[in-house]
Amino acid sequence: MKSKKSFFFFGANRAEGSAKMKDILGGKGANLAEMARLGLPVPPGFTIATDVCRTFYANNKKFPLKLQKEFLRYVRKLEDVSGKRFGDPANPLLVSVRSGSKFSMPGMMDTILNLGLNDKTAEYLIKLTNNEPFVYDCYRRLLEMFGDVVLGIDRSEFDTVKREWNVGPEMIGAYQEIIKEKSGQPFPQDPIKQLEMARDAVFKSWNKPSAITYRNEEKIPHTIGTAVNIQMMVFGNLGTDCATGVGFTRNPATGEKVFYGEYLTNAQGEDVVAGIRTPRPIAELSKEMLQAFRQLKTITSRLERHYRDVQDFEFTIEHGKLYMLQTRNGKRTGLAAVRIAVDMVREKLIKPEEAVRRVEPLQLNQLLHPMFDPKERSRFKVIAKGLNASPGAASGKVYFDPDKVVEMTGKGEQTLLVRSETSPDDIHGMYKAQGVLTATGGMTSHAAVVGRQMGKPSIVGCSAIKVDEEQRLFYAGNITIKEGDHISIDGTSGEVFLGNVPTVESEIMQVIKGERKGKDAPLYRDFALLLSWADKIRRLKVRANADIPRDAEYAVKFGAEGIGLCRTEHMFFAEDRLPIMQEMILATTREDRQKALNKLLPLQRSDFKGLFETMKGYPVTIRTLDPPLHEFLPKREELMVDIATLKAERPTQDARLASASRLWRGSPFGAAAERVQRIAEKERLLARVNELHEFNPMMGHRGCRLGITYPEITEMQTRAIFEAATEVARSGKTVLPEIMIPLVGHINEFKNQAIIVHRVADDVAKETGRKIKYTVGTMIEVPRAAVCADEIANEAQFFSFGTNDLTQMTFGFSRDDTGRFIRQYLDDKILPSDPFVTIDTQGVGQLIKITIEKGRKTRPALKVGICGEHGGDPDSVIFCHFSGLDYVSASPFRVAIARLAAAHAALGKT
Amino acid sequence: MKSKKSFFFFGANRAEGSAKMKDILGGKGANLAEMARLGLPVPPGFTIATDVCRTFYANNKKFPLKLQKEFLRYVRKLEDVSGKRFGDPANPLLVSVRSGSKFSMPGMMDTILNLGLNDKTAEYLIKLTNNEPFVYDCYRRLLEMFGDVVLGIDRSEFDTVKREWNVGPEMIGAYQEIIKEKSGQPFPQDPIKQLEMARDAVFKSWNKPSAITYRNEEKIPHTIGTAVNIQMMVFGNLGTDCATGVGFTRNPATGEKVFYGEYLTNAQGEDVVAGIRTPRPIAELSKEMLQAFRQLKTITSRLERHYRDVQDFEFTIEHGKLYMLQTRNGKRTGLAAVRIAVDMVREKLIKPEEAVRRVEPLQLNQLLHPMFDPKERSRFKVIAKGLNASPGAASGKVYFDPDKVVEMTGKGEQTLLVRSETSPDDIHGMYKAQGVLTATGGMTSHAAVVGRQMGKPSIVGCSAIKVDEEQRLFYAGNITIKEGDHISIDGTSGEVFLGNVPTVESEIMQVIKGERKGKDAPLYRDFALLLSWADKIRRLKVRANADIPRDAEYAVKFGAEGIGLCRTEHMFFAEDRLPIMQEMILATTREDRQKALNKLLPLQRSDFKGLFETMKGYPVTIRTLDPPLHEFLPKREELMVDIATLKAERPTQDARLASASRLWRGSPFGAAAERVQRIAEKERLLARVNELHEFNPMMGHRGCRLGITYPEITEMQTRAIFEAATEVARSGKTVLPEIMIPLVGHINEFKNQAIIVHRVADDVAKETGRKIKYTVGTMIEVPRAAVCADEIANEAQFFSFGTNDLTQMTFGFSRDDTGRFIRQYLDDKILPSDPFVTIDTQGVGQLIKITIEKGRKTRPALKVGICGEHGGDPDSVIFCHFSGLDYVSASPFRVAIARLAAAHAALGKT
Repeated sequence: MKSKKSFFFFGANRAEGSAKMKDILGGKGANLAEMARLGLPVPPGFTIATDVCRTFYANNKKFPLKLQKEFLRYVRKLEDVSGKRFGDPANPLLVSVRSGSKFSMPGMMDTILNLGLNDKTAEYLIKLTNNEPFVYDCYRRLLEMFGDVVLGIDRSEFDTVKREWNVGPEMIGAYQEIIKEKSGQPFPQDPIKQLEMARDAVFKSWNKPSAITYRNEEKIPHTIGTAVNIQMMVFGNLGTDCATGVGFTRNPATGEKVFYGEYLTNAQGEDVVAGIRTPRPIAELSKEMLQAFRQLKTITSRLERHYRDVQDFEFTIEHGKLYMLQTRNGKRTGLAAVRIAVDMVREKLIKPEEAVRRVEPLQLNQLLHPMFDPKERSRFKVIAKGLNASPGAASGKVYFDPDKVVEMTGKGEQTLLVRSETSPDDIHGMYKAQGVLTATGGMTSHAAVVGRQMGKPSIVGCSAIKVDEEQRLFYAGNITIKEGDHISIDGTSGEVFLGNVPTVESEIMQVIKGERKGKDAPLYRDFALLLSWADKIRRLKVRANADIPRDAEYAVKFGAEGIGLCRTEHMFFAEDRLPIMQEMILATTREDRQKALNKLLPLQRSDFKGLFETMKGYPVTIRTLDPPLHEFLPKREELMVDIATLKAERPTQDARLASASRLWRGSPFGAAAERVQRIAEKERLLARVNELHEFNPMMGHRGCRLGITYPEITEMQTRAIFEAATEVARSGKTVLPEIMIPLVGHINEFKNQAIIVHRVADDVAKETGRKIKYTVGTMIEVPRAAVCADEIANEAQFFSFGTNDLTQMTFGFSRDDTGRFIRQYLDDKILPSDPFVTIDTQGVGQLIKITIEKGRKTRPALKVGICGEHGGDPDSVIFCHFSGLDYVSASPFRVAIARLAAAHAALGKT
Repeated sequence: MKSKKSFFFFGANRAEGSAKMKDILGGKGANLAEMARLGLPVPPGFTIATDVCRTFYANNKKFPLKLQKEFLRYVRKLEDVSGKRFGDPANPLLVSVRSGSKFSMPGMMDTILNLGLNDKTAEYLIKLTNNEPFVYDCYRRLLEMFGDVVLGIDRSEFDTVKREWNVGPEMIGAYQEIIKEKSGQPFPQDPIKQLEMARDAVFKSWNKPSAITYRNEEKIPHTIGTAVNIQMMVFGNLGTDCATGVGFTRNPATGEKVFYGEYLTNAQGEDVVAGIRTPRPIAELSKEMLQAFRQLKTITSRLERHYRDVQDFEFTIEHGKLYMLQTRNGKRTGLAAVRIAVDMVREKLIKPEEAVRRVEPLQLNQLLHPMFDPKERSRFKVIAKGLNASPGAASGKVYFDPDKVVEMTGKGEQTLLVRSETSPDDIHGMYKAQGVLTATGGMTSHAAVVGRQMGKPSIVGCSAIKVDEEQRLFYAGNITIKEGDHISIDGTSGEVFLGNVPTVESEIMQVIKGERKGKDAPLYRDFALLLSWADKIRRLKVRANADIPRDAEYAVKFGAEGIGLCRTEHMFFAEDRLPIMQEMILATTREDRQKALNKLLPLQRSDFKGLFETMKGYPVTIRTLDPPLHEFLPKREELMVDIATLKAERPTQDARLASASRLWRGSPFGAAAERVQRIAEKERLLARVNELHEFNPMMGHRGCRLGITYPEITEMQTRAIFEAATEVARSGKTVLPEIMIPLVGHINEFKNQAIIVHRVADDVAKETGRKIKYTVGTMIEVPRAAVCADEIANEAQFFSFGTNDLTQMTFGFSRDDTGRFIRQYLDDKILPSDPFVTIDTQGVGQLIKITIEKGRKTRPALKVGICGEHGGDPDSVIFCHFSGLDYVSASPFRVAIARLAAAHAALGKT
């Protein structure tokens, strides 16, 4: 039986492989083959299939013996086609050996150039080229790369020699000495031996720790292995009529349709990226080597049309002759991705559907948030790295107290709020700050969720910093940053910079905010056009989570088709309402509580009115009060500390001291009495806070449990909703309120609250003479609701998955506390991804599927949505599509992402 | 079509009903019918079926018109059979009207006696009986009962007249005046009208608030309704040859086979229970009315044999003639239940299977815990009532600090630990205290769980008390109880008494503790015999949760067939280990952590050795470390308060002051420096506590998450287990360790820990040359594990449901925080029972069923058990039986209960 083909030749306008064979040949090998097929000038070579890499590992990291003969046959074929031979005095063959897996892993695996050189062939080449510096330079590079990649010698070992010596035979001798000394074996003079060792080293480089880490980050499977490409060398460093360069067929940062790249004359490939010499813009190549430049433009344009995508290419010019060394689809920023996709549709290169497919949903983020000027950021020092919770760039002076942030922002300062962690008490400061940095918390901690909700750059769980809020400073390693010092945070990368990194503003946000007209904003136009194509493709509806009219307005502009979650409690944290809320909580009788609620009613009503007006005609899902009441009160520890401090001031001693000095001061007894009174007040407050204190507030007295024990709260909220709806309906607008009961686990909880809603709705209808159409549904947040969904669907008219809580309960992970172990879980592959970022389809997802199946068994037309953080996560949106949900609801700033992801799902992306 | 039969006559040795018709006739009516059938002397009467009660409510609380004719026909039939007629001057009929539902609801619904009396019939009766006081007494009672039950007049309205006036015509007049004034209508003179009003009032009394509450407590359905019994009056108050009484065929408190009861001569039924006159022991009746006494003994013995159970009966003797007014199966204490069941088997009245069925598993509790002397407890004042978390009686001096409890117990005091709540830090105090009382927490709060585990009487969630730990006192209403004051708590009822209520010790516990021999303890013998019958019936195995050899020893004596849960962390709270544990936690390097672990290793090893030795041959399931590490450190708030207090002592001012007075004191700078140092120390500790602080520790860094981030802990624990097992195996004993990984949600978590266990087990086997057979399994505690059980069963060799956590996560209920709403949830019937006490079969139970189904699909022989608190709850044990579990594991003190419940399940009880 013939075994599977393991080697694939390319060159001389022919190839055994093609662009479709990336699985087998890797990206580089497949594209080299494709270029050869197209008749482009590609130096000949062959690719060892990825299969061999797997066999190599299965064979205890040894090249399989049975393939050796075939390997040598391909070496001979390369010699034949190139007309050169290894070690041939007349025409010695030199080759490059490069890795190349299916997915690009830039810089991760190893490359060896100039292989085939040895002491003899170097001599021959000097004679042949009459270019001694060139040959020794090539040889030096080979020794360095071979020493590093094959023999595991740290490149710095060569540094002294490289720095102090001239390139020449002595340097080569010294390099060989180093190799012998460090590796215990001399540099192999036999080219075939060199080649075999290099080939095996490339296979081994697949499992270098850095490569493994990279694949973990990029979610590339570890099992696919790398191919090895062995290719005849061509030289950009043979003289001034030689060059080497890289380029893109369009600008990968902006998407502009310009030929883009850089090159160096008389250089080898690695020099362009090494940063020792500054490469020149590719346009200048036309001045130096016009013919080659024209040929390069023609070839790359053809490649772009052939691949119907931007090409990222590498080339070398040897004595004026152009060689193509690589081409691939170019990576690009979100900005460029959108522009290129839309442009290519305009150019009829691709169909709208393909354009939609080309843009990764998360790339849209980059279009929305202010960015650090890419030209400037490298000047600044990175002092710490945390979780990139909410993308975007923010600079400002550091403050540790939300009140201070508000104060200093009022004085015109740009501020950043830095805290160990944030709580709802900090919201006012978060609104005002440019961005938020916390030392603790995960991707769905308070700071992260609110940050994304606000579209505010945020870094959380930055354990590299230690925040001392009392001293008003934080440490990052041995650097101390004090209140008022300037830092910058990149919420996209998670990096914290010392100093003020300049930013550039997002065009699209200017349009959304009404600061600029859409028609004058080309990027916005492209963005809107792309999304309009996505809308035609997707089945899932997309709504937004919005609590205030401004957010609702942004949501509509971003294309939201309704509000999927209005968190009424956020309305109570406002400065003018918190005291009334506290009054309500501190009330000891139902009457007093009702009094406070009566004060809140008109405020809530006007909130809802604003929302209904903004969302004209779209459904608005309003959730009744959800968080535990103690979130509205001062913190327990703070009160305890205050009281202890007041007490420790020892009024009796003070008084004694004062009595001795009564004559020369005001009455000290007044001060003592005042202190006693303050202690009593604080103790009273503490007593109530203690009563409300919970060990695990996330699973405590919250959600519908509040509405059940304090029905008057649900009554007030329902009344506010229906009074507002009636007022807006009177003005002729359609209003579609959907009242949503949170944290329901048992059908009776739902019934209890639904009865109140129906009763109050009827009351308002009677009082106003106008009936509003509405529905009452529930969140599915606790696993019990999932397994009892059939029963709950008897009563609930819609379901909305609160996947934050559902994930918490399903895993038993407190989202605020996972920081302590989630990093290790991800690094050790215990979990494939953070379940608070992307839905855990296996566990949580299974509960979601059970819910939908059971719910629709009872109520076939049951509307089902999701309003957790996952509603704006593309992978999760795709899961929602395939699970049969009706809509996802995301923060306004994620609505576009969700629209695009929903289209991807409809296109079958998984 | 003929409608359903609504009225059932009894009397004159015949009856239309029978004992089997309790659904229709209620308990009282069915037994009256049965007695009539048996030819016993029952005054004639008829029963209105429970069906009519339902119709009554459906008919807007009106008696259905269409039944009125039939009703009157039965009244006439009663007149015919009794030979008396309503209002007949010659022989006026008087009747009683009593409620009677299927389930006994003592004192809950209403009764009216002497109905048929009016101004005229009273006159007739005086003539007929020549007993004016008797007639006016009867009339007075009727007016009072009718006023209360039918017309809703508070009985106290009659108090002044009753106290100050003689029974006679003036009193009757005054009573009638009160009735007219308070109800707005005169007392109806027409007996039929009286009867109709009384009948309807009895139906209405079914839904009195107190009756509803009672049914809620006793889990009696609200829909079954009550029957009404209308029966000819016979009079125990016609003179000294008349009497009335109640009794039991055996002693319902002890089970002793003695004729038991009390009676009053010349009295009506209500007098016996009212406590105005002191009733006399029934034995004395033989001296007063020998013939009636003999007849009563004969009849009740016959009834006991007929019903094959202890009878609780009521009788009246009218002029020497005995009438039976009621019989029913008697309620009894646990003590009596066991003795009676076993005795009746001995007497061949019932089969062992029936005896097993007769004892409610929870009744066994009463046999284990010390009890308040029933004769003494009524002397003491109940000052508060909380949740009856752990049954039994305890008295002692109140202390608020576990250290103080240890100290005072050491001095020979009986102590009670009173806290707002307890934490693992308090364990040493809880061990020493007689009982525990907390103001907060639910039935599975720390205090409750540990209380039951220790078999220590505990009342938790006693919100009626306010604990001020700092002032060392608590308030119960306006009573202040200070440190050292005496109180008593009844963990069975939840009552807190002021003072020292005397207790009696449990015989069975004396045997278990080895203080008494089983063969000399008759109650123990009955108990053991009954359970041996249960063992033959049950399929479920029963294990115990035990952490220390002493508990394991008790468990074996209680019949445990293995340890289902050994919580290794409890071993670390011991006084000699906590400091090492803290050292381990505070370590900043792996090396330092390892050092501390090395110190813990021999201690753990000896713990396990003790367990293995005690459990000779039985399996021992050992769970690796579970709780979050901060449980082992001081509390965060306490540290914060300490630091604030130290700081507020303002060293600078102190120093200034001191410098002015340096001459007459020691150096104050030393004290200041010392304070600064103490602050620094505490701040260092606080920093670590802060690092470990969690918002929701129950869902935080605990369970296998600890073992994953600190693999060296799992290593140490595994090594301790296998070294101990090897040592015990060397002595020739069988050892069956089962290592259990807690809080697994994802298969990879399990794999990670199982690899460590297998590796260390192999290491120890190599070191010792002896292989120990063992298994590695997992707890099923998080919903994710349930839905992914098929995958987890690929690796895990057994499952054990941690239903405490599973309930927490499934509901999203923190067991420590449910106190705030669970009472209302139960009262409002939102939940049928506390899910931390009885498994929520619908939600949590569904996850359990999914787990078993999926787990056994992968591994058909998978062993599945339960080790949550529910393992000792009879309803939950029954659920476990029917769900196909292999075993339940309960606290040692619940093992007997579980054995009995498992037998009940096998007998088909649901």
